[in-house]
Amino acid sequence: MVNINQDETLDDLIIQGLQIIQKRKGFRLTLDSVLLAHFVSVKEGDRVIDLGTGTGVIPLILSTRAKKIAITGIEIQEEMVEMAARSVLLNGREESITIHRGDIRDIHNELGGGIYTVVCANPPYWTMGGGEVNVRPELALARHEVACALEDVVSSASKLLNYQGRFALIHRVERLVDLFALLRQYRLEPRRIRLIHSFRDKAAHLVLVEARKSAPPDLKALPPLIIYEKPGCFTSEILSWYGKEGGSVG
Amino acid sequence: MVNINQDETLDDLIIQGLQIIQKRKGFRLTLDSVLLAHFVSVKEGDRVIDLGTGTGVIPLILSTRAKKIAITGIEIQEEMVEMAARSVLLNGREESITIHRGDIRDIHNELGGGIYTVVCANPPYWTMGGGEVNVRPELALARHEVACALEDVVSSASKLLNYQGRFALIHRVERLVDLFALLRQYRLEPRRIRLIHSFRDKAAHLVLVEARKSAPPDLKALPPLIIYEKPGCFTSEILSWYGKEGGSVG
Repeated sequence: MVNINQDETLDDLIIQGLQIIQKRKGFRLTLDSVLLAHFVSVKEGDRVIDLGTGTGVIPLILSTRAKKIAITGIEIQEEMVEMAARSVLLNGREESITIHRGDIRDIHNELGGGIYTVVCANPPYWTMGGGEVNVRPELALARHEVACALEDVVSSASKLLNYQGRFALIHRVERLVDLFALLRQYRLEPRRIRLIHSFRDKAAHLVLVEARKSAPPDLKALPPLIIYEKPGCFTSEILSWYGKEGGSVG
Repeated sequence: MVNINQDETLDDLIIQGLQIIQKRKGFRLTLDSVLLAHFVSVKEGDRVIDLGTGTGVIPLILSTRAKKIAITGIEIQEEMVEMAARSVLLNGREESITIHRGDIRDIHNELGGGIYTVVCANPPYWTMGGGEVNVRPELALARHEVACALEDVVSSASKLLNYQGRFALIHRVERLVDLFALLRQYRLEPRRIRLIHSFRDKAAHLVLVEARKSAPPDLKALPPLIIYEKPGCFTSEILSWYGKEGGSVG
């Protein structure tokens, strides 16, 4: 029997009966992680790392997408590690998913560099309020910190991946040029992108990117990922990820 | 009276009654130039250069998009310069459009560097047959030549543009990462992209990019540009560019 604490909720992921434990307050599941978990290429036998796994939502969804994959979720906060591990137990996924406490900056020393086939990450975004460059010093500092965090994630992915291993992440479109430059700097060549549009006729604010280690340039741009058919109504693609139970997510 | 030679055809652009002279054989108008001419940001008073103007199709369309813009089409082939100039006369656009023979690599010395507000270009693509990297030496050479040509175009645009001037081009998606890197190398920051999909549910093979000289990073991804609603039937966006005459293009 898995315990749910008073400050936690137990929520349906509405994907193959998966459930997830979350904090009542603080970071809660967003659609972003679900989008990333459906975008990343996974196949039987993959060895996967999820950097900054939080509630463990990405490992849980990935465990439904391919057979015999071994997924390790890395998380630095002890409390989150313990909570994510309970979600793994609750869903009976302890054979395929391990939640591991660690710092992404040196996790390759602990778990081994160059041996993973897939790394994914939903790193923190730096939001600028409408995309304007903000010159207030404290925000410039926040920008710098988030930029460093992104570089840590990319650097870590590059160290963990084997030759031709895939690194998938979701990020804000306004930083795509920086992201491409950073990925190349760490020998991760962007090979697949998918723009995410809330509605068909709106600008994309988020982008899914998959890079491949030491691969030559040859980018593919997938069809646009549209979230809503109309306000409050998901597109059939989003709904197709969910079972007969319906489509309330995020 | 403008003369049309035996080896030429006179075709309707189906945009505000514009007509264009083309060679019967050789490079003929494609939809790409029309897409670019509708994507680039132009406003009253702009000073525009079209690098490698060919038939002059981009200057002709641009002349319908904003008042009081001065457009110079640069073309290296004498025969094309003369033909494009006749198309300008034929459409009575000689006050706004000049076709100029020149080499894009040193055109800034002739016409002046740092004084144009907009540069656009539909540069040659390097097509690789399905996007696979081809290792045959003669194709590697072709790749190198086209890469040089692209760098010449980007370098030329950077020299011609004033501070915050815009450079718009259309290119193949598989080269987008290279293109972003090249643009930044020449202080042209990508600020707007639009992926072009033949159909809504297909991958994009072409991308429109607008960069701004000496601007900070802040990329926007416009809604996807879809060409066909179904086979043989343009989307309403494409049709909206055309008058009541109908929608046969490219």
